[in-house]
Amino acid sequence: MRILMIGASGTLGRAVTKELEKKHEMIRAGRHGADVTVDIQSVDSITNMYRQVGKVDAVISATGSAHFGPITDLTPELNELAIESKLKGQINLVLLGLDYVKDGGSFTLTTGILMDDPIAQGASAAMANGGVKAFVKSAAIEMPRGIRINSVSPSVLQESWDQYASFFPGFEAVPAARAALAFIKSVEGAQTGQNYEVY
Amino acid sequence: MRILMIGASGTLGRAVTKELEKKHEMIRAGRHGADVTVDIQSVDSITNMYRQVGKVDAVISATGSAHFGPITDLTPELNELAIESKLKGQINLVLLGLDYVKDGGSFTLTTGILMDDPIAQGASAAMANGGVKAFVKSAAIEMPRGIRINSVSPSVLQESWDQYASFFPGFEAVPAARAALAFIKSVEGAQTGQNYEVY
Repeated sequence: MRILMIGASGTLGRAVTKELEKKHEMIRAGRHGADVTVDIQSVDSITNMYRQVGKVDAVISATGSAHFGPITDLTPELNELAIESKLKGQINLVLLGLDYVKDGGSFTLTTGILMDDPIAQGASAAMANGGVKAFVKSAAIEMPRGIRINSVSPSVLQESWDQYASFFPGFEAVPAARAALAFIKSVEGAQTGQNYEVY
Repeated sequence: MRILMIGASGTLGRAVTKELEKKHEMIRAGRHGADVTVDIQSVDSITNMYRQVGKVDAVISATGSAHFGPITDLTPELNELAIESKLKGQINLVLLGLDYVKDGGSFTLTTGILMDDPIAQGASAAMANGGVKAFVKSAAIEMPRGIRINSVSPSVLQESWDQYASFFPGFEAVPAARAALAFIKSVEGAQTGQNYEVY
């Protein structure tokens, strides 16, 4: 398959790419150092990416940012990062990419454990995760031409544990390679409308 | 209690107000014909509303719009209504209202069945519902001063059935008065972080 991987240089994106490139042609997209440059917060940038890349069998998003901070300090402005990036950025990859995905192809987005198992300072990220999950479940029932759509919800990654451990007391970190399996299931499998929990 | 009811003139808002005004002081807010005018899509308008109203024991939102249409026609621009209104509008009622809710008070937002039981043309609304639900669950664990936060997820209302029946094949409509019970549970009860399903 020809697979467009957005967020290819992140911890999760690298692990997913490493697994999928064994069998597939991977096109790496991201803000820096990728085959194609894209800023998912920009509709124009997403459109340009798809025009450059052309038709693909699968689109994977392993990207999206959010502000972390106490709910008492969360302003509408600080909440915008999660809205623009992790939520709208990922959804716009679908809305603008439909015509570039071949019949029977797939989209796979990334949510995260915070919507199910919240932590302090994580409300904005949880919001974005929950929005993406619900969008995926609903969009799946009316995707055209047999196109499927799923999301993967990883726990905190082992590779990021040293950096984030203090935010996740008692959480069990998962190896990015294990999270990558869920992306393989989404891309190579036949399910749609799923949110694969890797907890 | 002194309760600020946003979306007081809608089908759901009227039913909730009717039940709660038996015991509480209700301040009706909305775009038209209310005690206080507010447009939840505007941060300034929300801020002005809170300044006018002052301290309250509870804030209820029974409002929020979304575009309904096929996923193949859904553009980033059409998706903005759900983002700005049902999702950000409701969340900003919380972020901007924290200082106006008394110790031990509560917020109650509205989600909806579409995130759990999707219909064609409902992906944008489902997205907003899912985002609000996840925000509520996460924000609840770090709300200050004993403030609680919940959401209510009604099925399609009996009162709206004639208008929307064709979109909801096989759904069981619920009376707005039954949905209102969940708001009473949220306001007068002691739970937090819940999404009350009225299906």
